[in-house]
Amino acid sequence: MANSKFEYVRNFEVVDKCLPNCWIVVRLDGKNFHRFSDDHEFVKPNDDRALDLMKKSAENVMNEFKDVVIAYGQSDEFSFVLKKTTTQFSRRASKLMSNMVSLFSSSFVYHWKDVFDHVPLLYPPAFDGRVVLYPSDQNLRDYLSWRQADCHINNLYNTCFWSLVQDAGCSPKDAEEKLKGSFSSDKNELLFSQFGINYNTLPEMHRKGSVLIWEMKDEITLQPQAKTSAVSDTNPAQREIIRQRRRVTCLHVDIIRDDFWNKHPEILSGT
Amino acid sequence: MANSKFEYVRNFEVVDKCLPNCWIVVRLDGKNFHRFSDDHEFVKPNDDRALDLMKKSAENVMNEFKDVVIAYGQSDEFSFVLKKTTTQFSRRASKLMSNMVSLFSSSFVYHWKDVFDHVPLLYPPAFDGRVVLYPSDQNLRDYLSWRQADCHINNLYNTCFWSLVQDAGCSPKDAEEKLKGSFSSDKNELLFSQFGINYNTLPEMHRKGSVLIWEMKDEITLQPQAKTSAVSDTNPAQREIIRQRRRVTCLHVDIIRDDFWNKHPEILSGT
Amino acid sequence: MANSKFEYVRNFEVVDKCLPNCWIVVRLDGKNFHRFSDDHEFVKPNDDRALDLMKKSAENVMNEFKDVVIAYGQSDEFSFVLKKTTTQFSRRASKLMSNMVSLFSSSFVYHWKDVFDHVPLLYPPAFDGRVVLYPSDQNLRDYLSWRQADCHINNLYNTCFWSLVQDAGCSPKDAEEKLKGSFSSDKNELLFSQFGINYNTLPEMHRKGSVLIWEMKDEITLQPQAKTSAVSDTNPAQREIIRQRRRVTCLHVDIIRDDFWNKHPEILSGT
Amino acid sequence: MANSKFEYVRNFEVVDKCLPNCWIVVRLDGKNFHRFSDDHEFVKPNDDRALDLMKKSAENVMNEFKDVVIAYGQSDEFSFVLKKTTTQFSRRASKLMSNMVSLFSSSFVYHWKDVFDHVPLLYPPAFDGRVVLYPSDQNLRDYLSWRQADCHINNLYNTCFWSLVQDAGCSPKDAEEKLKGSFSSDKNELLFSQFGINYNTLPEMHRKGSVLIWEMKDEITLQPQAKTSAVSDTNPAQREIIRQRRRVTCLHVDIIRDDFWNKHPEILSGT
Repeated sequence: MANSKFEYVRNFEVVDKCLPNCWIVVRLDGKNFHRFSDDHEFVKPNDDRALDLMKKSAENVMNEFKDVVIAYGQSDEFSFVLKKTTTQFSRRASKLMSNMVSLFSSSFVYHWKDVFDHVPLLYPPAFDGRVVLYPSDQNLRDYLSWRQADCHINNLYNTCFWSLVQDAGCSPKDAEEKLKGSFSSDKNELLFSQFGINYNTLPEMHRKGSVLIWEMKDEITLQPQAKTSAVSDTNPAQREIIRQRRRVTCLHVDIIRDDFWNKHPEILSGT
Repeated sequence: MANSKFEYVRNFEVVDKCLPNCWIVVRLDGKNFHRFSDDHEFVKPNDDRALDLMKKSAENVMNEFKDVVIAYGQSDEFSFVLKKTTTQFSRRASKLMSNMVSLFSSSFVYHWKDVFDHVPLLYPPAFDGRVVLYPSDQNLRDYLSWRQADCHINNLYNTCFWSLVQDAGCSPKDAEEKLKGSFSSDKNELLFSQFGINYNTLPEMHRKGSVLIWEMKDEITLQPQAKTSAVSDTNPAQREIIRQRRRVTCLHVDIIRDDFWNKHPEILSGT
Repeated sequence: MANSKFEYVRNFEVVDKCLPNCWIVVRLDGKNFHRFSDDHEFVKPNDDRALDLMKKSAENVMNEFKDVVIAYGQSDEFSFVLKKTTTQFSRRASKLMSNMVSLFSSSFVYHWKDVFDHVPLLYPPAFDGRVVLYPSDQNLRDYLSWRQADCHINNLYNTCFWSLVQDAGCSPKDAEEKLKGSFSSDKNELLFSQFGINYNTLPEMHRKGSVLIWEMKDEITLQPQAKTSAVSDTNPAQREIIRQRRRVTCLHVDIIRDDFWNKHPEILSGT
Repeated sequence: MANSKFEYVRNFEVVDKCLPNCWIVVRLDGKNFHRFSDDHEFVKPNDDRALDLMKKSAENVMNEFKDVVIAYGQSDEFSFVLKKTTTQFSRRASKLMSNMVSLFSSSFVYHWKDVFDHVPLLYPPAFDGRVVLYPSDQNLRDYLSWRQADCHINNLYNTCFWSLVQDAGCSPKDAEEKLKGSFSSDKNELLFSQFGINYNTLPEMHRKGSVLIWEMKDEITLQPQAKTSAVSDTNPAQREIIRQRRRVTCLHVDIIRDDFWNKHPEILSGT
């Protein structure tokens, strides 16, 4: 049974290389996570276990895709930014995206019990993915600002909504009605006057989302001394070796203003 | 913090709709599964638990994507064929592909313990995905034939290789050397003469791979009788209702020759 | 001055191969031809010189692109259908399209004086182009039917409009108003009752557009006899050689119904 | 004859919008211009009439596409650079490219007699086109440098080749053989020692190619005085109005080094 006569079908495959010298953003979004969060009784408006699991899954992706220079997550979505010069998978969009979404999804299930403990995972969840290219640093920053502003807007709304429902006994419908057309200032005021909540003191993870970047950390290992050396108190059998290693670190900070970028110039410089 | 000034970044997204009236094939492949199978001590040449897990994950995908008319899997890969007329996700390639690869991956981890029992999953696996379009029925059949022929070629080779290594005590290198340049007939002969194995009697799942299609099955439910009816022996309180329902079924059969397609005309006709 | 350090810019080019086994349609449309036809005082509703020039330009394209199996033109547009199996320019969409639109445009200017005689061409015209793929024969026929139905609809409208303006002294505005919302039957009736025109007897080129296909034609050449043969009355010094050659021929016929396709099975069979 | 049942075929068209915030380069190349230049007995190594015709055609394209900020031509090719922010044709690649290549081609034929006088154009020529995106200014400059370096390399070679053939009586084959593997310095030396040619004093159009940019020029028009004004010697019936207008200008200068770009900052700044 020769395979050769069927092999022509390979020519129907399309090579979808990303334009060189552009930032490659892969964004993942939970599919039907409204229902998923209900089914698993997520704490509203924010479930720290779920957010931690998202972060852990994203960290897995970064450890596998070293060319990701920054990742940003909020709610049930995560964006991964590959450096402009990456040549991973020859910059093939579908390869990059499918591998990332796959690893993220399997990690989410794999680590479920680590954060949700005895809460059973009722069914396997799904995330969709997309690839977007950004030619300039400004475009990329605007993209990340867009996602963080979205985080803020949704979190402020959700905090109000769930306060009204959980603490003031409103029906979801009434709460929705009450918030319709309100401005940020109205919502801040509502939280403070009615619920005694100062929005700006709420956890930064909820207000800012999660920013994953690389940090150099000292890693200490013990190495046996060379045999020829005499072992003594001042010259022990082992010695400490300190190596600098890149590690993923998670921040909950503003990435819209310049401060963050000035502090972490390596992200955009790609070094 | 208005979001509007950042929102222009949405225009950088690309709409990647699949050409209408084409079969859409989404193929998933395990990433580094050679290492993954070693790490988890898969039985060689075929580990039925792993194959079952692949099937179970694929079944999950089909139950979520009702427009998949046939799926074919072998080794660490699975292909899903969406009917020509599907409008799911507006035929957006990246949406279809990412959702499928994500659900498959999370299902793989979710069901791991069902088939691998006490064997621990050491780390979350990843699958890559791709989308390929086939304009004609013949192209599609040739694609599936290509994959099944590949299954046969690899399985025959692997059966020989592992017989030489496991039963004849060859080193992997020697086994490889021995098989280099051999024809199918040589390999069949080797199996029979040296190991008493008649290749054609080996399990069909290993030789043909797994074919998932939809089958109509009777589903019986009990329904209470209307209250006004008198309950008696000949007229019990409940009655059986038989409904026809589509269910995924798994076959291990030849899909290269016409027989299969003549028997299942609904696959290509899309009805 | 080494060129090598700049050559990396070639990697930014995209390979845009057309999906195999699909009909490739390249359609050209005159840019701003409303104004162009006014500037050159085209006869309304149809200028036979302009239509002839379109046909001549299209014929040039076909003679250069032998894989075009049929071309269809009407008004200021022309569609070229490349056979499914063409490998010209490796099926690169931009190559195919740009070469066709370029040759068509230069031919249009080149042959202008042949049909427009002393009417000067005031400025060089432009055509835009697009590539569309059709997977099935039915899709392709529906595409061509779409264009021919469009020809009919526009021609019927334009014939009414210009009769009202030129013969009945209506202003363009009034004519437009009169025709608004009218059905085909209304327009036929209007032409007949008010202008004595039986629409179905108008020139087929106007009602059906132009269909260019290949036809085998006998081509007679004279060849000198071999020297050794005696020359006589019954055995002249030269003899006729009849060869069959493909030639572009232009028809003005219905291509919506089956008749045309039954009569020219070679178009779809690609032989 | 309703058109609606065929109109579904429009859905097979693909929207091919260029990524925002990238330079869009459309490059045209003469098809089979080796043969075309032989058929029309072009002067070798450079035919100024042909180069002028290319420039004139390019100028036509720029006057129609105001968003072209710079165009560069050499031999039988021309590149047009559209500013990053252009929204012409909604940035649809095929629209932009086809319209440009079409207008260029028709202009080439239209203006033929203006430069070639009584030399007849034997057949309509064709150009192919392609679209390439460049994300950064440096990428764009490197692209243009690549083309200008190519111009230099080819012109130096061709000058040597045709000197050997035309002046030294070499056969084309011998000339080719002689130049094989030679460096720039060898070619410069050959020209100087054998033919008394100082390469650097040859026409800049041949060595640098043609650079088309926009220049502000004063345009003087006469405007009648307002009726109420008294007409006198010091107050004539008409007065001069000076307006600044953008005009295409052609330079033959180095665009690899910074000088040009420092002198014309408006090209990259897009103002």
